[in-house]
Amino acid sequence: MKIFVVNPNSTASMTETIRLSAVRAAAPGTQIIVATVAGAPASIEGYADEARAVPGTLDAIRLAEAQGAQATVIACFDDPGLSAAREVATGPVIGICQAGIQVAMTIAARFSIVTTLPRSVPIIEDLVDAYGASRQCRSVRSVNLPVLALEEDPETAFARLRTEIRRAINEDGAEAVVLGCAGMAEMCRALQLETGVPVIDGVSAAVKLAEAMVGGGFATAKTGSFAYPRDKSLMAATHP
Amino acid sequence: MKIFVVNPNSTASMTETIRLSAVRAAAPGTQIIVATVAGAPASIEGYADEARAVPGTLDAIRLAEAQGAQATVIACFDDPGLSAAREVATGPVIGICQAGIQVAMTIAARFSIVTTLPRSVPIIEDLVDAYGASRQCRSVRSVNLPVLALEEDPETAFARLRTEIRRAINEDGAEAVVLGCAGMAEMCRALQLETGVPVIDGVSAAVKLAEAMVGGGFATAKTGSFAYPRDKSLMAATHP
Amino acid sequence: MKIFVVNPNSTASMTETIRLSAVRAAAPGTQIIVATVAGAPASIEGYADEARAVPGTLDAIRLAEAQGAQATVIACFDDPGLSAAREVATGPVIGICQAGIQVAMTIAARFSIVTTLPRSVPIIEDLVDAYGASRQCRSVRSVNLPVLALEEDPETAFARLRTEIRRAINEDGAEAVVLGCAGMAEMCRALQLETGVPVIDGVSAAVKLAEAMVGGGFATAKTGSFAYPRDKSLMAATHP
Amino acid sequence: MKIFVVNPNSTASMTETIRLSAVRAAAPGTQIIVATVAGAPASIEGYADEARAVPGTLDAIRLAEAQGAQATVIACFDDPGLSAAREVATGPVIGICQAGIQVAMTIAARFSIVTTLPRSVPIIEDLVDAYGASRQCRSVRSVNLPVLALEEDPETAFARLRTEIRRAINEDGAEAVVLGCAGMAEMCRALQLETGVPVIDGVSAAVKLAEAMVGGGFATAKTGSFAYPRDKSLMAATHP
Amino acid sequence: MKIFVVNPNSTASMTETIRLSAVRAAAPGTQIIVATVAGAPASIEGYADEARAVPGTLDAIRLAEAQGAQATVIACFDDPGLSAAREVATGPVIGICQAGIQVAMTIAARFSIVTTLPRSVPIIEDLVDAYGASRQCRSVRSVNLPVLALEEDPETAFARLRTEIRRAINEDGAEAVVLGCAGMAEMCRALQLETGVPVIDGVSAAVKLAEAMVGGGFATAKTGSFAYPRDKSLMAATHP
Amino acid sequence: MKIFVVNPNSTASMTETIRLSAVRAAAPGTQIIVATVAGAPASIEGYADEARAVPGTLDAIRLAEAQGAQATVIACFDDPGLSAAREVATGPVIGICQAGIQVAMTIAARFSIVTTLPRSVPIIEDLVDAYGASRQCRSVRSVNLPVLALEEDPETAFARLRTEIRRAINEDGAEAVVLGCAGMAEMCRALQLETGVPVIDGVSAAVKLAEAMVGGGFATAKTGSFAYPRDKSLMAATHP
Repeated sequence: MKIFVVNPNSTASMTETIRLSAVRAAAPGTQIIVATVAGAPASIEGYADEARAVPGTLDAIRLAEAQGAQATVIACFDDPGLSAAREVATGPVIGICQAGIQVAMTIAARFSIVTTLPRSVPIIEDLVDAYGASRQCRSVRSVNLPVLALEEDPETAFARLRTEIRRAINEDGAEAVVLGCAGMAEMCRALQLETGVPVIDGVSAAVKLAEAMVGGGFATAKTGSFAYPRDKSLMAATHP
Repeated sequence: MKIFVVNPNSTASMTETIRLSAVRAAAPGTQIIVATVAGAPASIEGYADEARAVPGTLDAIRLAEAQGAQATVIACFDDPGLSAAREVATGPVIGICQAGIQVAMTIAARFSIVTTLPRSVPIIEDLVDAYGASRQCRSVRSVNLPVLALEEDPETAFARLRTEIRRAINEDGAEAVVLGCAGMAEMCRALQLETGVPVIDGVSAAVKLAEAMVGGGFATAKTGSFAYPRDKSLMAATHP
Repeated sequence: MKIFVVNPNSTASMTETIRLSAVRAAAPGTQIIVATVAGAPASIEGYADEARAVPGTLDAIRLAEAQGAQATVIACFDDPGLSAAREVATGPVIGICQAGIQVAMTIAARFSIVTTLPRSVPIIEDLVDAYGASRQCRSVRSVNLPVLALEEDPETAFARLRTEIRRAINEDGAEAVVLGCAGMAEMCRALQLETGVPVIDGVSAAVKLAEAMVGGGFATAKTGSFAYPRDKSLMAATHP
Repeated sequence: MKIFVVNPNSTASMTETIRLSAVRAAAPGTQIIVATVAGAPASIEGYADEARAVPGTLDAIRLAEAQGAQATVIACFDDPGLSAAREVATGPVIGICQAGIQVAMTIAARFSIVTTLPRSVPIIEDLVDAYGASRQCRSVRSVNLPVLALEEDPETAFARLRTEIRRAINEDGAEAVVLGCAGMAEMCRALQLETGVPVIDGVSAAVKLAEAMVGGGFATAKTGSFAYPRDKSLMAATHP
Repeated sequence: MKIFVVNPNSTASMTETIRLSAVRAAAPGTQIIVATVAGAPASIEGYADEARAVPGTLDAIRLAEAQGAQATVIACFDDPGLSAAREVATGPVIGICQAGIQVAMTIAARFSIVTTLPRSVPIIEDLVDAYGASRQCRSVRSVNLPVLALEEDPETAFARLRTEIRRAINEDGAEAVVLGCAGMAEMCRALQLETGVPVIDGVSAAVKLAEAMVGGGFATAKTGSFAYPRDKSLMAATHP
Repeated sequence: MKIFVVNPNSTASMTETIRLSAVRAAAPGTQIIVATVAGAPASIEGYADEARAVPGTLDAIRLAEAQGAQATVIACFDDPGLSAAREVATGPVIGICQAGIQVAMTIAARFSIVTTLPRSVPIIEDLVDAYGASRQCRSVRSVNLPVLALEEDPETAFARLRTEIRRAINEDGAEAVVLGCAGMAEMCRALQLETGVPVIDGVSAAVKLAEAMVGGGFATAKTGSFAYPRDKSLMAATHP
């Protein structure tokens, strides 16, 4: 099984972090293909960054499917372009935010999310609502660090994540925590060990759900909202 | 990987239908174990049937885990005892309604559910709401046939399901349909072929998600709502 | 008028507490009949305890109705088996959580609930939502004491309840408080006196609403979700 | 026990209909006092009619309490001035819409409401939402007759009500129906007999709940939203 | 363009504050007409005050329209009688709470509201919900001062408003703040300067939206809920 | 006052339709500047079209602001890139869907929306929900015509729009209707005349609200979600 994991930003080192997490999560027969979206912002921090990243992400998905990818994981916690990707793709498309939330709703009655910058909090809150988890998600918290600081200063990042997860446990009554950034994947296990609650990495969750979707033969519905775009030639012309 | 699929009712032929669907969906390395809950109602049609079925279902789950089961699927679309099962189980527990809905929300912007009797409609509507899919789920429809009629008169059942799915497509704008009863699993592929939209069988969906949960190492949170019951000895004494 | 008040757990001393509260609330012409559910857990603390308690509760209701009970009160704040009870019963069935909330919504624009253990908080929050009081209910708080500690150490329980009610007033802006456990009934008046806001005991509220339902001739609807279970003989066979 | 039932409109014959319904519902020891609000519109059909009726209703409530009324029922299905009445009153105040809905939510999983004019539909829908019954209330329907036509042409009114209740049963899956106007009280029993589902008259429901509130000692919270108005002298001066 | 701004309370000095704010906001060609509602409470603090103020407000609107007003602004943050006013008026009617919220939702993803007394908090929270801003509005806060203290002790009022706005920024993550009382209009600019976030005065917002509605030719829908009251003569007779 | 109206698609004739509608709506002192987004899809019909159109739209907005635009209107009913635009812009940004809904909520208690293709229905429904109008918006309907058919076959388009508006009135109880496509602007007045309810063109609504925002000095909040993107140089580099 071939699963495409796209990093919507243009930072190759982050793609490598994501790839490692995806490979670790993948079942024996699963092949993980990754891509960095050239020309996208270096990190996705806000609505405009998302918007700049999506067209290239869609192109990457079409290319990956042409090369045999059976499912796609969008490895940014804002799930940028998720619905658009479902339109252009033939196989199922999994967002790491939606995947992390689906796993959290399966193992906990109440959970929290911890992300990077405060400006991402409303974006993720709105996703929580769109995915129907408002009742189960106690809060979306931030460690007040930019995405790339996760790589540049992992010790500070780890310490702040641990602090914020403990707050989620004690103040929110969170029974599990979802990490709100693809770049946090490597810290997942250690955070779980130190805090004592399940800590969910969206990339791992998405890879497992992608495998489940392909294995179960569940493909994106193509008769309604996610039908292929009406004018494909134009799309190609616009973003060569 | 060992996955336990429990049929909460006491009809063994329905367990066999469920087993076939589960085995068909399972990955090569997955072993499916099934059980029928002796003493439960012959079918689950309403809140009281659910209540009568749950204690035996919990006992069956504990027994299956003692014998090595790594995840549990509750194969009744009312997801009877799902939260209670998450308390008594160590591995993840998947309800076929929640699984079917999670798959539907991943492949379609709008979907409908088709179940057996009208009396089950409000039960399933409330699950849809609890699982956060009220915005995506257009309607819960019924074919007005009791559960066991699916086995006794499969032709009528198939015809009515096809009719109701087509209504969901035309009247609701449903882009995919979830079958609202474990006993409908065998008709799933044919219904998909004849109606042209993805038709989701909850048993298959749940088996794939159970595999994903075990594969990803996602276990039920045990520090909050789903902590083990406080007095296990009593539980054993009560339902020997 | 004959009202049946069932204690879904198996602790007879708690049934007596409930009986006293019910008798105190009852109108002159009302006869209160109580029962303890033998074989149920000693207290209801979580989803599994609920599940273990419900079948016996249903049997007790059918027996009580056969002996002339005109309405039933389920005296556990999780309202375990409420919908199932409405199926098996002919008369109206009142849950003490729903009753407490209905009274609170009639006398206050904003209220809070104080219960025993933290693990019950999400259960009650979901009931608040199901009963449509999410906007009016500020928070569900816990005193972090198990149910039976209310009897074993009433002084600590009282002190913690008073503290938590005061927090609800000051931090939540609660204008009234509902006690989130049948075992708290005896402390209700003293708590109201000391805190200065209406403190609502669910058992009293439920008895009054049960009287109102019987007096008004309001019986459970029997044509839809709450129609009698389809196969009564089986139910009897299963739980003799 | 003394219960005050106020008809917020100025049509005395409608007050008499309401009085009869209230007296029929009242327990033996309950004394029903009624009042018509002089100067109010002849019927309440829309927001402005409500607004015109409320100040006189508040005055009437204060007068009735001064004369010993222990609880108040506002006998118009728009529940005009309900929150304001809770501010000025010492005893509990029951709106017939909220009461009808609370009874419906206790006896049915799904219900509908049938009112008079289409223009009242959004008003009642918003009340349904405010009282937390959006999930249980299938629809608010109208018979397209003005309020006073219930008296002037009761046969047409009865026929249309029966038709609309049957539609609610067949099209909505309503398991019970609430009559959406105080003036429909007299037809309640006959409609229930002919349609086979519980038909709830808000006036009866409110009287029973008022008795329950008084009997249970539940008084309006006076420390928050429903504290007495800050400047009573002004209120008196304004509406002598 | 002639815009009528009605102060629903009877304090003329507050009308003058409102008038100044309205005139400052108005476009060159806009003429602002104001009125104080004689006989209304001195300030609107609670549901009963609202109820007492509405009939006179409706009369004032009808009079103003008869004298050429093309739109109406109700200058009290509880939006008292807004729907009723839309019934009696021909031109559009703007409530300052709804206007402030619409502006806030246009310029910020998350905002908070700061009002006067705690008793107004639930009233405004319910308006936030009715206007569909529950997801965007973080909290409704109060400075715990009566309305008229804004005039009597403006320094204390300003200090408390600044403190509460800063709390909204730091504790709620509010990106903008709406002032929850017409009497706060004069402090708006200074508060914005000192706190660094947009601070929205409802009166200004409403005047601009009123101009927009008139300029765009948007008039109140007159075929449904906001059709003229059915019996106008009665209305006149009741409140001469 | 200079208002920038951007047509996010690449069809210049549609920009002209939009310009005409904007100019007609504008106040005397308002200068309307328009732009077509070169390289965008010919029409916006689905999520992928939106995604392809947004980066160019953001660039256009930045250019227009550099040339003195004080507010921006995004003239596509899906409000593509609205939040991203609020990040990059200094002035307020108005989406025609949000504007149309705000106007509808001001003049009607219940309204419906009529759009082009069925595939846009869920997109608009989700916007309705995000803008908080779910309770007021009865339905989103489609005339089942692609966007460009509005220009190519205006007679068919008009006839179908009239039919669908009448259905909204009769079947939904809609008191007003919002046209769900910028290309429908020219038909707005005629549709209003023929159907008898207010018919709202989003472009006109947005222009009036943009004027109101500029006139009132309401600028986008720049301290939170809508702060400028963190790395502007990258944005420029990516989309030169």
